Amino acid sequence: MINSQSILNGDRLALTRLLTQVENNTPAARTALIELFPHTGKAHLIGVTGAPGAGKSSLVNQLALHYRKTKEKRVAVIAVDPSSPFTGGAVLGDRVRMRDLSGDPGVFIRSMASRGSLGGLAQSTANMAQVFDAAGFDIVIIETVGAGQSEVDVARLAHTTLVVEAPGMGDDIQAIKAGILEIADVLVINKADRPGVENTEKALKSMLELAHPTQRVFQHHGTFMSAALPEPQTDARLWIPPIQKTVSINGKGITELVDAIARHVQHLTESGHWVVRDRTRLEAELDALIHEALMLRFRENVPQKQYDDMFEKIMSRSLSPLEAVRLLIR
Amino acid sequence: MINSQSILNGDRLALTRLLTQVENNTPAARTALIELFPHTGKAHLIGVTGAPGAGKSSLVNQLALHYRKTKEKRVAVIAVDPSSPFTGGAVLGDRVRMRDLSGDPGVFIRSMASRGSLGGLAQSTANMAQVFDAAGFDIVIIETVGAGQSEVDVARLAHTTLVVEAPGMGDDIQAIKAGILEIADVLVINKADRPGVENTEKALKSMLELAHPTQRVFQHHGTFMSAALPEPQTDARLWIPPIQKTVSINGKGITELVDAIARHVQHLTESGHWVVRDRTRLEAELDALIHEALMLRFRENVPQKQYDDMFEKIMSRSLSPLEAVRLLIR
Repeated sequence: MINSQSILNGDRLALTRLLTQVENNTPAARTALIELFPHTGKAHLIGVTGAPGAGKSSLVNQLALHYRKTKEKRVAVIAVDPSSPFTGGAVLGDRVRMRDLSGDPGVFIRSMASRGSLGGLAQSTANMAQVFDAAGFDIVIIETVGAGQSEVDVARLAHTTLVVEAPGMGDDIQAIKAGILEIADVLVINKADRPGVENTEKALKSMLELAHPTQRVFQHHGTFMSAALPEPQTDARLWIPPIQKTVSINGKGITELVDAIARHVQHLTESGHWVVRDRTRLEAELDALIHEALMLRFRENVPQKQYDDMFEKIMSRSLSPLEAVRLLIR
Repeated sequence: MINSQSILNGDRLALTRLLTQVENNTPAARTALIELFPHTGKAHLIGVTGAPGAGKSSLVNQLALHYRKTKEKRVAVIAVDPSSPFTGGAVLGDRVRMRDLSGDPGVFIRSMASRGSLGGLAQSTANMAQVFDAAGFDIVIIETVGAGQSEVDVARLAHTTLVVEAPGMGDDIQAIKAGILEIADVLVINKADRPGVENTEKALKSMLELAHPTQRVFQHHGTFMSAALPEPQTDARLWIPPIQKTVSINGKGITELVDAIARHVQHLTESGHWVVRDRTRLEAELDALIHEALMLRFRENVPQKQYDDMFEKIMSRSLSPLEAVRLLIR
């Protein structure tokens, strides 16, 4: 049994143990999550996603260091590795970051490998974020590798989503990325000291134009007209993802990135989108839990033999799946 | 109402109309699917996936032509475009293929854009494949753009999955692709007349070694030892994805690719994996339908107001989602 009070008191050992319970979705974890829930809703959840090789891990490392040292925030990092849905192996790159951050009680880094369905992974990640939130971490960074559905899940979970690119990624990558641009609140070109950074920036800008046609107004009229119009970053209704250039190995551009994130928080608060994102996240969570509970009750109510017999009829094509469901769910 | 008999009789107009109904998941579609289900289970479902720019569309075109002209098979193509989960736009490249294949009653090409959840897309695709199967198409090719979860869904649906690469895709693409290699039954290097084909082949081979360590035996001992050992392609338990090189714009390598696909069918049949894949596919389908039916019944039984009130309590952190589910599902 985990004492929820010890989590609220900042007991790191209790926290570590609870996170393992949460990952394994144990009854103890569920009890603790219920007890901790009233203490959640304060943390700023930041999603960081992008293709492998963009340097996400070291960027997250720098972000965490910056929030620690400059803003005195308590920072938790959940490093999610969806890797392959089939193998479930953990290939999370360098844990070098640990050297800079370990020993600091205001920082907590947790890796999580994919086990089975991405849906389950999203739920575990959401639950871990809740635990960190209740435990008083001001910033919870959720880092994930860019692989389709998982970014969407991160976008649903986070208040602010960073999509990280790096120069030298081909046109094909760009095409894949077109979809995930839509979930970006801040675009980061990491490794910005490398050749090709102008091309990457140009490509991102033209994709942003496609995704946010209103931006054209500001671009086409230049600074002269822009002066008369409200700054897009402070317009309550509109947020155009800024493009931030960073070099995470030496920390260049991190201060500016943190400022951009702060502007996004301000935008979310002033526009009321902070509450909207909170609502969306909790709706998705409730929906997933209802699904799970319904399936569990279904399995309890339908004898295995009945299910198996029906499935054999489906295999022999004498009963269609649609008919089977009608029979199973009276 | 759609007359299922007319589908079985090969009425193309009825088929077109039913496919639209299936895409919109109408009651008429469900009735037709139930009536047609006993006539399914004969078609060979071939999945074709890979990154944008690998030339999948023209490859599928060539495959369809080959099956038509050389094997006299009836071929259906479902071109799935997951594009962005948010916009749902259809950006399916060249429909130039139509020029070669249109007018041939033994070929049917259908495009489908993503609408909302990938889960729903997978279900629609599975249902369309069933319709084509019942309508007497021998080969059903399901083409999808490589974007994470959607490949996995294709792999679950197809008997044989082709993963298509092209020379000149960077290391980062390769890293992304590591996961989808595991779903490949046949690897295709398309545009094999382009420079860099040796590098792509080398990269794929080393990744195959990681995914299928047993292959090393054959590679390291060369043809001398291989003669004494069973050919991996005909070993009932083991299938190592062959690497096929094609140039889809002129049809080079297509005959060899069709032969490789035929060897895979033989492997599936002899090893009993054909039935296993059938079973996996139908299990996933039944599971999705049960989910859907349970959620539908839940929404019918729980008044909207009760749900809304409970959700407001969650938003104010006075009730946790886990407790809410316990209250909603008595």
